[in-house]
Amino acid sequence: MQEIADLQSASSVLQWDQETYIPSGASSYRSRQIATLAGLSHEKFTSGEISVLVNSLLQENQADQLYHRSLLRIKKDLSRKEKLNRAFVEQLSHATSEGLSSWEKARKLNEFKVFSPSLNNLVALKKNECELIGYKSHPYDALVEEFEPGMTKTLLDSIFNKLLPHLNDLFNRIKGTNSVPDNKFLLGHFDSKIQWEMGLKLLKQIGFDFKRGRQDLSIHPFTITTSPDDVRITTRISEENFTEMLWSCLHEAGHAIYEQGLSKGMYGFPSSEAASLGIHESQSRLWENQIGRELPFWMGNYSILKDSFPLQFEKIDLSEFYNGINIVEPGLIRTNADELTYHYHVYIRYKLECLLIENKLNVNDLPDAWNDLYFNLLGVKPLSPVEGILQDVHWAHGSFGYFPTYSLGSLYAAQFYAAAKQSNPLLEQELTEGNTAQLLQWLSENIFAKGRLFDSEEICKMATGSGLNSDIFINYLTKKYQTVYQFS
Amino acid sequence: MQEIADLQSASSVLQWDQETYIPSGASSYRSRQIATLAGLSHEKFTSGEISVLVNSLLQENQADQLYHRSLLRIKKDLSRKEKLNRAFVEQLSHATSEGLSSWEKARKLNEFKVFSPSLNNLVALKKNECELIGYKSHPYDALVEEFEPGMTKTLLDSIFNKLLPHLNDLFNRIKGTNSVPDNKFLLGHFDSKIQWEMGLKLLKQIGFDFKRGRQDLSIHPFTITTSPDDVRITTRISEENFTEMLWSCLHEAGHAIYEQGLSKGMYGFPSSEAASLGIHESQSRLWENQIGRELPFWMGNYSILKDSFPLQFEKIDLSEFYNGINIVEPGLIRTNADELTYHYHVYIRYKLECLLIENKLNVNDLPDAWNDLYFNLLGVKPLSPVEGILQDVHWAHGSFGYFPTYSLGSLYAAQFYAAAKQSNPLLEQELTEGNTAQLLQWLSENIFAKGRLFDSEEICKMATGSGLNSDIFINYLTKKYQTVYQFS
Repeated sequence: MQEIADLQSASSVLQWDQETYIPSGASSYRSRQIATLAGLSHEKFTSGEISVLVNSLLQENQADQLYHRSLLRIKKDLSRKEKLNRAFVEQLSHATSEGLSSWEKARKLNEFKVFSPSLNNLVALKKNECELIGYKSHPYDALVEEFEPGMTKTLLDSIFNKLLPHLNDLFNRIKGTNSVPDNKFLLGHFDSKIQWEMGLKLLKQIGFDFKRGRQDLSIHPFTITTSPDDVRITTRISEENFTEMLWSCLHEAGHAIYEQGLSKGMYGFPSSEAASLGIHESQSRLWENQIGRELPFWMGNYSILKDSFPLQFEKIDLSEFYNGINIVEPGLIRTNADELTYHYHVYIRYKLECLLIENKLNVNDLPDAWNDLYFNLLGVKPLSPVEGILQDVHWAHGSFGYFPTYSLGSLYAAQFYAAAKQSNPLLEQELTEGNTAQLLQWLSENIFAKGRLFDSEEICKMATGSGLNSDIFINYLTKKYQTVYQFS
Repeated sequence: MQEIADLQSASSVLQWDQETYIPSGASSYRSRQIATLAGLSHEKFTSGEISVLVNSLLQENQADQLYHRSLLRIKKDLSRKEKLNRAFVEQLSHATSEGLSSWEKARKLNEFKVFSPSLNNLVALKKNECELIGYKSHPYDALVEEFEPGMTKTLLDSIFNKLLPHLNDLFNRIKGTNSVPDNKFLLGHFDSKIQWEMGLKLLKQIGFDFKRGRQDLSIHPFTITTSPDDVRITTRISEENFTEMLWSCLHEAGHAIYEQGLSKGMYGFPSSEAASLGIHESQSRLWENQIGRELPFWMGNYSILKDSFPLQFEKIDLSEFYNGINIVEPGLIRTNADELTYHYHVYIRYKLECLLIENKLNVNDLPDAWNDLYFNLLGVKPLSPVEGILQDVHWAHGSFGYFPTYSLGSLYAAQFYAAAKQSNPLLEQELTEGNTAQLLQWLSENIFAKGRLFDSEEICKMATGSGLNSDIFINYLTKKYQTVYQFS
């Protein structure tokens, strides 16, 4: 298992490098290197040796419950992975490397058709994967299970069906008020070096460990773990709008603090791994939103912003700043969206993914379907593919079934944060003093320490006393927008 | 073979990262990742499958001479590698990663004893390797063969025994002259960013392809190939002495231009690989010395230097510059040495390596032995380990038997450059115009295109009409110092 972890870690370094420092002409060999590592690691895992060991250990050892859980996790992973052969794994790996580079090219040229052949190939491979893996009621289940064990299309539909009417309602109340906060101070010219330095300060401030990680620039911000002692994040900087860097920093830091906080005891085993993407996103969304878009954190850190850009923020007091960063405004780009309309972006991707996997939509028709959904749900229409279908790297990476975890993450984040506050009434007081230690402690005990030994729902129950409950998120949003938009 | 190349390339990315961007606390997991890749690639190569294929192909195919040579090379590699088992390969890999990190620590603390336990371990492993590999007359032969196929301790002794008296003689003639050129203009304050930019300009100018490579900073400059389309170099910058960056840039560029110039046709096979370290060093030393320390190149590029540091070089004309950069002055640091005393540095390492391998010297006694040899041969004595035994990363990397290839490289470089000039009387004229195309063409045809299908001596004979002939290097140096020191 640890040898496999070494191969996967090596692949992570290669992927990190591919999105940060690789020379422009080097991508084709890099693709084959990554594919070979994926193939070898798949082969090692599914060769039968581990399966025999796990089965015999499962019979021997019943006493240590956590150890037993760990073995069951591995057995479950095996049963999924054994359905794919090495050739398929390498083919998929090649297709995603190709996808990534054609997506980048397509973005540069702002032309969907540059990306569509790769995407078509990826969708076909993913459909094939659904059949190889198998599913009970819907092929999409086979995809989402990879990122969110226990989750299905049926459950997702019911979550969105409950969530969206609440969001619509809240959205309508906001539109019904006369109070529109000012946020013009968020635009202007923000020197990229100063932004970079400010980002580093905030990362240190909240607890990202630079001895065991680093930050770099990339087109699409991401977090990648190349070993338990080396978790890397990236950000992007727009000199016109510093909030892109700001919230991407906090978002990726949430992922990274989770990874840095996992137990180091069992490198290569489920107890040292992250639970699911939903839980992962709960960590990134918590730092981005419950922390980064709320007052306590900014009471502790607004001076860092003011020191970085004194002219821009000289006359903006904290409550103006708070209102300004929480404006609800339907837009085209998911990563720049407010906390309310964000979920429409996710829902649109989810809808389109299901249609693609169900053969109800062709890749070539995606841009039109995208634009129609954006117009119908958000009232906006992309003027070009870069603002529409070509945003977000995930499909290029072959990640289908990933997007819904962003919404799940937001819901979990609100629920976790509420539980942390309840267990420690001084939590927000501490945040206003720039002190994140107690929050980190709560997360460490209730989330990080669980590793991948439990499903998201189990972790949520242990941490908060109940399974996923979107009311908490809705209450959180309602309270926020009552303040910002002054409705009752 | 190509899968093995993928694993080795992946390992190269990990090593590059380890010496450039890895967070300070991440080295222990990186060591095990690199060891696993080394072990797997060793296991794949020596599993028997390739051996069976090569032997049967060797019987089938006799017609295509180059193909036949390629198979023979692989067979030879196999016969060496089969003598080592995977456990030994991983142990050595771990020891070198540990060596690297303790060497870095020792340098920071300027204390040899911080490094000596790792070095002791590495020397023991290397002695063990000599016995496993086997040798005819001297254990050192087993080590040098890895870097310079066909080379032995007996041959090296005869090369140094011929070379050193000539160098002594030349050195005495230099000391006997009254003419000591000025080089004070090489010292001062040289802004590191401007140096960096100047280095990039010169790299582009001579033909380093940034689409298929990059440059970064590291403690010890190196070149590493992470694929045929991705050859990376590093440099270091001293603001007090810009020549460190300058010649390290040209030196590493020489290595990199060789790697970038190898045939891409047979990725993973000897025809697409570099011939030996001696030939590799011939390329780096050629660009560093025959180009970078001679007039034609500077006639074409002195303006880049003057534009970068106008104040320092305003009043220095090209001939003063030429004389200044070619002063002979015994010093403590190999990489800063002039072309003459350089070989004493190499010879000292070589002597010490032989003594270590012969059990005639203990690791703990190395600093004293080092200091005595420096005093006896160069008349200088290090005041601290960083200026002495702790310079140069090679031993920390487990590279014993590597140093002599620096001298071989210098001799080959002079011989190759002389042959290139002879074949094209306009070569130096072109260099004065900043045009390196014809030189690159000659190197490509006579060196790069040969891959690793021939031993160094064979390549030298094909390229120059004779085997290694140190007279050409001595003539080159004599002519240079006649100009600089004005003796006849």
